[in-house]
Amino acid sequence: MMRLAPPGFAKFNQAHSLNVVYGGTEANVAVSLAYFGCEAVHVTRFPDHALGRAAAATLRFHGVDTSRITYGPGRLGLYFLETGAVSRASQIIYDRYDSAFSLIQPGDFDWDAILTGADWFHWSGITPALSQQAADCLLDAIQTANRLSVKVSGDIYFRSNLWKYGRTPQEILPALTAGCDLVLGNQANFEELYGVEADTFDDACHRMQEKFPRIQYFTDTERESVSASHNRLTAKIFDGTTMYSSEVYDITHIIDRIGGGDAYLAGLIYGLLATDDPQYAVEFGAAASALKHTVEGDANLVTVPEVEALVQGDKSGRLRR
Amino acid sequence: MMRLAPPGFAKFNQAHSLNVVYGGTEANVAVSLAYFGCEAVHVTRFPDHALGRAAAATLRFHGVDTSRITYGPGRLGLYFLETGAVSRASQIIYDRYDSAFSLIQPGDFDWDAILTGADWFHWSGITPALSQQAADCLLDAIQTANRLSVKVSGDIYFRSNLWKYGRTPQEILPALTAGCDLVLGNQANFEELYGVEADTFDDACHRMQEKFPRIQYFTDTERESVSASHNRLTAKIFDGTTMYSSEVYDITHIIDRIGGGDAYLAGLIYGLLATDDPQYAVEFGAAASALKHTVEGDANLVTVPEVEALVQGDKSGRLRR
Amino acid sequence: MMRLAPPGFAKFNQAHSLNVVYGGTEANVAVSLAYFGCEAVHVTRFPDHALGRAAAATLRFHGVDTSRITYGPGRLGLYFLETGAVSRASQIIYDRYDSAFSLIQPGDFDWDAILTGADWFHWSGITPALSQQAADCLLDAIQTANRLSVKVSGDIYFRSNLWKYGRTPQEILPALTAGCDLVLGNQANFEELYGVEADTFDDACHRMQEKFPRIQYFTDTERESVSASHNRLTAKIFDGTTMYSSEVYDITHIIDRIGGGDAYLAGLIYGLLATDDPQYAVEFGAAASALKHTVEGDANLVTVPEVEALVQGDKSGRLRR
Amino acid sequence: MMRLAPPGFAKFNQAHSLNVVYGGTEANVAVSLAYFGCEAVHVTRFPDHALGRAAAATLRFHGVDTSRITYGPGRLGLYFLETGAVSRASQIIYDRYDSAFSLIQPGDFDWDAILTGADWFHWSGITPALSQQAADCLLDAIQTANRLSVKVSGDIYFRSNLWKYGRTPQEILPALTAGCDLVLGNQANFEELYGVEADTFDDACHRMQEKFPRIQYFTDTERESVSASHNRLTAKIFDGTTMYSSEVYDITHIIDRIGGGDAYLAGLIYGLLATDDPQYAVEFGAAASALKHTVEGDANLVTVPEVEALVQGDKSGRLRR
Amino acid sequence: MMRLAPPGFAKFNQAHSLNVVYGGTEANVAVSLAYFGCEAVHVTRFPDHALGRAAAATLRFHGVDTSRITYGPGRLGLYFLETGAVSRASQIIYDRYDSAFSLIQPGDFDWDAILTGADWFHWSGITPALSQQAADCLLDAIQTANRLSVKVSGDIYFRSNLWKYGRTPQEILPALTAGCDLVLGNQANFEELYGVEADTFDDACHRMQEKFPRIQYFTDTERESVSASHNRLTAKIFDGTTMYSSEVYDITHIIDRIGGGDAYLAGLIYGLLATDDPQYAVEFGAAASALKHTVEGDANLVTVPEVEALVQGDKSGRLRR
Amino acid sequence: MMRLAPPGFAKFNQAHSLNVVYGGTEANVAVSLAYFGCEAVHVTRFPDHALGRAAAATLRFHGVDTSRITYGPGRLGLYFLETGAVSRASQIIYDRYDSAFSLIQPGDFDWDAILTGADWFHWSGITPALSQQAADCLLDAIQTANRLSVKVSGDIYFRSNLWKYGRTPQEILPALTAGCDLVLGNQANFEELYGVEADTFDDACHRMQEKFPRIQYFTDTERESVSASHNRLTAKIFDGTTMYSSEVYDITHIIDRIGGGDAYLAGLIYGLLATDDPQYAVEFGAAASALKHTVEGDANLVTVPEVEALVQGDKSGRLRR
Repeated sequence: MMRLAPPGFAKFNQAHSLNVVYGGTEANVAVSLAYFGCEAVHVTRFPDHALGRAAAATLRFHGVDTSRITYGPGRLGLYFLETGAVSRASQIIYDRYDSAFSLIQPGDFDWDAILTGADWFHWSGITPALSQQAADCLLDAIQTANRLSVKVSGDIYFRSNLWKYGRTPQEILPALTAGCDLVLGNQANFEELYGVEADTFDDACHRMQEKFPRIQYFTDTERESVSASHNRLTAKIFDGTTMYSSEVYDITHIIDRIGGGDAYLAGLIYGLLATDDPQYAVEFGAAASALKHTVEGDANLVTVPEVEALVQGDKSGRLRR
Repeated sequence: MMRLAPPGFAKFNQAHSLNVVYGGTEANVAVSLAYFGCEAVHVTRFPDHALGRAAAATLRFHGVDTSRITYGPGRLGLYFLETGAVSRASQIIYDRYDSAFSLIQPGDFDWDAILTGADWFHWSGITPALSQQAADCLLDAIQTANRLSVKVSGDIYFRSNLWKYGRTPQEILPALTAGCDLVLGNQANFEELYGVEADTFDDACHRMQEKFPRIQYFTDTERESVSASHNRLTAKIFDGTTMYSSEVYDITHIIDRIGGGDAYLAGLIYGLLATDDPQYAVEFGAAASALKHTVEGDANLVTVPEVEALVQGDKSGRLRR
Repeated sequence: MMRLAPPGFAKFNQAHSLNVVYGGTEANVAVSLAYFGCEAVHVTRFPDHALGRAAAATLRFHGVDTSRITYGPGRLGLYFLETGAVSRASQIIYDRYDSAFSLIQPGDFDWDAILTGADWFHWSGITPALSQQAADCLLDAIQTANRLSVKVSGDIYFRSNLWKYGRTPQEILPALTAGCDLVLGNQANFEELYGVEADTFDDACHRMQEKFPRIQYFTDTERESVSASHNRLTAKIFDGTTMYSSEVYDITHIIDRIGGGDAYLAGLIYGLLATDDPQYAVEFGAAASALKHTVEGDANLVTVPEVEALVQGDKSGRLRR
Repeated sequence: MMRLAPPGFAKFNQAHSLNVVYGGTEANVAVSLAYFGCEAVHVTRFPDHALGRAAAATLRFHGVDTSRITYGPGRLGLYFLETGAVSRASQIIYDRYDSAFSLIQPGDFDWDAILTGADWFHWSGITPALSQQAADCLLDAIQTANRLSVKVSGDIYFRSNLWKYGRTPQEILPALTAGCDLVLGNQANFEELYGVEADTFDDACHRMQEKFPRIQYFTDTERESVSASHNRLTAKIFDGTTMYSSEVYDITHIIDRIGGGDAYLAGLIYGLLATDDPQYAVEFGAAASALKHTVEGDANLVTVPEVEALVQGDKSGRLRR
Repeated sequence: MMRLAPPGFAKFNQAHSLNVVYGGTEANVAVSLAYFGCEAVHVTRFPDHALGRAAAATLRFHGVDTSRITYGPGRLGLYFLETGAVSRASQIIYDRYDSAFSLIQPGDFDWDAILTGADWFHWSGITPALSQQAADCLLDAIQTANRLSVKVSGDIYFRSNLWKYGRTPQEILPALTAGCDLVLGNQANFEELYGVEADTFDDACHRMQEKFPRIQYFTDTERESVSASHNRLTAKIFDGTTMYSSEVYDITHIIDRIGGGDAYLAGLIYGLLATDDPQYAVEFGAAASALKHTVEGDANLVTVPEVEALVQGDKSGRLRR
Repeated sequence: MMRLAPPGFAKFNQAHSLNVVYGGTEANVAVSLAYFGCEAVHVTRFPDHALGRAAAATLRFHGVDTSRITYGPGRLGLYFLETGAVSRASQIIYDRYDSAFSLIQPGDFDWDAILTGADWFHWSGITPALSQQAADCLLDAIQTANRLSVKVSGDIYFRSNLWKYGRTPQEILPALTAGCDLVLGNQANFEELYGVEADTFDDACHRMQEKFPRIQYFTDTERESVSASHNRLTAKIFDGTTMYSSEVYDITHIIDRIGGGDAYLAGLIYGLLATDDPQYAVEFGAAASALKHTVEGDANLVTVPEVEALVQGDKSGRLRR
């Protein structure tokens, strides 16, 4: 998606130019992983015009492998972002219906070729919300990943008002969730989507695991929104036995909070790939997400040493020469 | 529509910000007429969000009466403009399907109230291309204007690839054209749309008049594109008897050529309203259009004295203090 | 007035461009009320040149009715604003002598026509400071409003160094104040302008009411300036019996504090017009003013739902999609 | 003066920021001479605030000696510039009444100290138009220069609408002109200001010399304004005997034509100081002025080698590495 | 190299920001070929810091394969560009000594692996000017290419003041030239570098071919610099028998002429690879170069259809929708 | 040096333009002293090209006497600055080898002429790190200052990785330090550079004074880096007897922290020159440094009244009209 945002804190009707950034939840995860040194492949379809090509070029700039991207008819999904401050909330106007991506068809992507040799496949709840074909395509990918023993993570946060093609998330998501090794979601999601009722997140995770035995990890972030300019952030991961919590980050001067969740997931995935240690992974993810709030744009552009320094406790932001 | 254009001569993929202007063929005519001192009312529907409101506010800024604009669901139509130079052509990527405007319904606008007391109603071939409802709505407006003796002008330049709702321009446009007092179009349009074959523009106009006896004036502009930076422009109008031609303007350093045709039409309408003299009107329109090529944005922001000075022959561009 | 401000936190001599905003205390109140859905009419005179027209067009953009604005000789009032941070104060250089507005004459405005049907008339202490004619004109307006039972509010904060035409505020303001239903001012103003001595604001209000029996409400804001980047704000209103205080807003990351008082007044007036409840009005006004500190420019561009959310206690600034 | 100009070709009401440049006819001459390696001293009064200081600092940046500038009350003179193109003229809105400079008093400057050791003193017709004191101050300077054998040049182009203090240029300018060694003006000026009627410029110069025997040189530029984007420029100088004409420069892509006359005068003065050869001086001045049209801002920032290369005939603009 | 250029036509000392573009003669050729759809690999060494990484990322953005780039100590080469107009020349200040690239060592690159499967290897005379190691490295590459039957082109334009490491171009270039299949250079180069004296370019090519029998093609561009804003451009290629000349392009409004020669070479190489027809190739190259003059930055970002349209004769620059 | 910084908080690879500021530790001290009303002379060598001239012009803009600057071969030293926020550190990439300044020779500057009549000479540890000639030149200056009884201050913070010409700071700095009246440094510097071991800063100062009896004052700042956006700052000065400490400044919204130490030194020097009272001087220096953190660029542009207001305790940052 192309993000179009008035400069600084201008309101939408004060903007005479809009800053352009390309993002999107899965693309953000891919970019961040590329900065962490992983070989990240983004699989999507962009419109076959100069702006669709620019979106891919931007991913390539950030080190993502774009060789699996296809081009076809349809729009470039857009969103407009107005950045708030203190008690004035940021606002997003989405304009992403009929995107080229929503027109993908099962068969457009050779998942066996794409996933062979991969370590991880990540998807979000946006994709199956767009169209039946997109949902089918995603299911195909997940099943292929399962077959090839590629780990699968799903970000099941969903926006109910996105689902307009006649199916509900309750109908579509369970089959996709069943193929996951790691799920990002909260108790409310679990109840609303899968009818899993529980008193606590731990408890909800247990019940989810009963329902979806493949899932090894459940994870979530907690954001205390002191104001639009100041958030506190922490994360947790449950491995079926233990709930691991991260440091709490006090982000006192937010630069750009879009993509904070994607940055967390990228950090978490990196951490699990690198160490298989959930405590390390959740700390790495939370620190990565905290850093993302200081980076302009949707995607996190920080490297492993920067995240590790923060994980080690250096919050001083002291000048590096 | 919102126009999003890279600054200067940057190509689409070189843009990190996009300049925002609100335009659209009928809106451009309205803005230009407002700068000429006319009471211009723009009748449309914008999406009911901050950007739709900003579009209306911008028209209001330029002096257009926006009290008849309604707000509803649907997108804000967009287009992306890359500005070329010399032998590199400017390029437009349209993104205007499913606009709020395309969702208008007959009955949304009280044309009797809107048109009572008006002197002129102007429409373009974009409107009936968007949807059956838009076409019906327009026909309603034209017939009301006819009934109330409000002059009607139609810009029948059309883009065949816009027509996607199952009807052809050949089916829809004749009824709309029949209600016109003035038509902007060329010989090729007349043949393609109405089957009017002729050897010359004069001849074509005669035959059009036979077919559509209400039409008093036919007009068109001629643009010699020396390069993307340098055009020559002239216009003509036919009143059934005489073909009046304007001065030829040599526009050696184009700043922004979008909306040149709309600027011509606004000038022509102003000229006819002010003097009923086709020679004056075509000169005024052509000079207005020439000036538009030096104004950034879609709409012409020049005033009557500026146009008249050019009509009088002062092309010197000498500094005014 | 045109505000010219270096971008960001640049000092005056670091600026190679100046951002342009049109403002002025009464215009700011009008704009804010227009965003609250009120029919706001701004009555002034601007210079009869492109920049005077641009000032009016900008008000129109923001939804203010500019049909009562007249144009004539005189300058466009200007001010230059340098934005400070932390312990560096923002600075203003005024350049507004001989503005077109200061040259208005009694008789220039048909107050009966303007005020008939209006609910409220607002003025500030800047106007009578500019010239005897401006003061006369204002008195005429206030007396007309009184006659037509239009509520009158006066912001009597004054800058003594503005008064250069030979009269003092002590000579001019009492007659204007006598026509007010609501006054914004503090104890020091009351003593300096009207010789009203008192120990507390409550007491001062009582004595003011004895002197000016028409005044129903006294109101004021209190600003704790922790630093140029961080203020705390609260407001109070006295209805002759009870002193109502608002929530205290902690504005930890100020974007633009100019016009905070005007935003308060607009919110207060809206609140009184909408509910006639001083407690609601002072809360609405204070919340509106707090939000203004996050909006670039002189005028508050927030809507009723945004203010009400803050009045309801949601200070989280959480992203709205 | 501070020049405030919309970026690019934006019209005044399209500007959301204004580019800032400091200029003014005498200051422009001083800056250009400083770039030519001369010790240029600018004598003026600026307002005693941050923007007045910034104006002086900018001159200092460009190498002008600002140690003789004084600071006092009064405004900073302003002008607003809208840049035209092709047949759309550039427009200037002046806002310079009550400038600090207009409030100078005879005695404010110690002309003996300032002019001792100087080679040249230059003034323009703007100064005596501002106030009686300014005119008196200037006369004092000219007479001191005459006494100290410092050459004096006067640019007598005048704007009649500037003279508002009760005296006419016809009353004031003759005494100032009498002290000049070089005068920039045309036949129409000579007739209007001094009643000198003549058929040709040569003839007019002769009669001027009869009237003002001190004047050694008369000079003028001729500008053919093909369009706002394309001018042709030439200059001539008369030494009482011979009329020397410069090359004609075809300036096909004007960047900024403000200050073209000042650039000419600076080049001419440099040429006369360097060689005492009117042919060289007029060529140097004309080439300098041609180059000024490619430099942004009021003042010419080119150096002697750049001008000499053009005088030698290299108009190729070939890249220098 | 990083290009740092004042915006618009600002002179170096008017710049408060510098626009950043990454370029360099070989990189420009690679980027342009990537836009033509070729698999272009750029082989260089960048400094191992964020800016070196950004240079590579930018190439990747433009579709160039950067997997062969290495990172090491040394500076990022820079150049500063001031853009002139009309008779004011553009100026370049180079700052590229001690670049990371100049520190490359023979053995740093595995030329066999790099060149196996390649069609073409291109080098410029900048590389051997930087250091003995760079020259050695290049010779290694050329000899490998010869061995693997990869076509080699050399742009032997050289800047004598670049050669500072103790060897002359006359000592170093012949061995490199001997491995070329195509050489870009002019008669003066051939004489100065190789002692080849001749009356005409044709004749010089013949003698060069005697000396360097491998060279199949000689090519050059001719630029008539009407002014800094207006150039005329043509090109020619000699295949040992026939001299093929291209159309002359009249570039009346230059946007950015840097990289015009590189754009020509990329077009020529594309043309030869695509058709092996020197007439087609020289036309394609010249048209590509003409288009480059309208593209901001060092590299040509146009595609084959855009170039072919110009080759077919459409110079109208007519808007494409 | 030229500082090149991405706008706002953009990372290096997000920058398409770089903001330009000229700075450098000694230049920053000179600029700040000029704003305090001192006659500040900057002695350096810049490259003899347009950018070297621009660096000097910028100092002149800020009121520094540049008449002692010489121009010669060598580069303009550069540094690239990426501005961090919260826990993301700012980063600097230096690019200053082979600067024109590093090529200065003893004899290039006539120190007797430069220092005669001066009150103070300030140097930093950067200068002797650059080259043997620079170190020799500096020693010459210090010894001349000592001879002429000009006070000497040295900022001995050093970057060990700068020293590349074969000598160590331990070899070079003692002789320079011996000529100082005031030294800025901390305990670790004293130990590393001069082998002075001590338990406390007080103790270290005593031992330094034994070793370098000329030194009257030792001073240092302490910065608590809460985050990249929020620092706390205090300073202290030891006069051989008493340790004077300043107020602690809580800089909650840092705008630009580069040059904070230079701003402190300029304030301290001003304070000592103005009052010879170390308590006043350290307070003035610390307040000046706190204000610097709110000023964009390397140099502090605040005036004495602004600093004194803060010293007096007004941290409110309240708007000044």
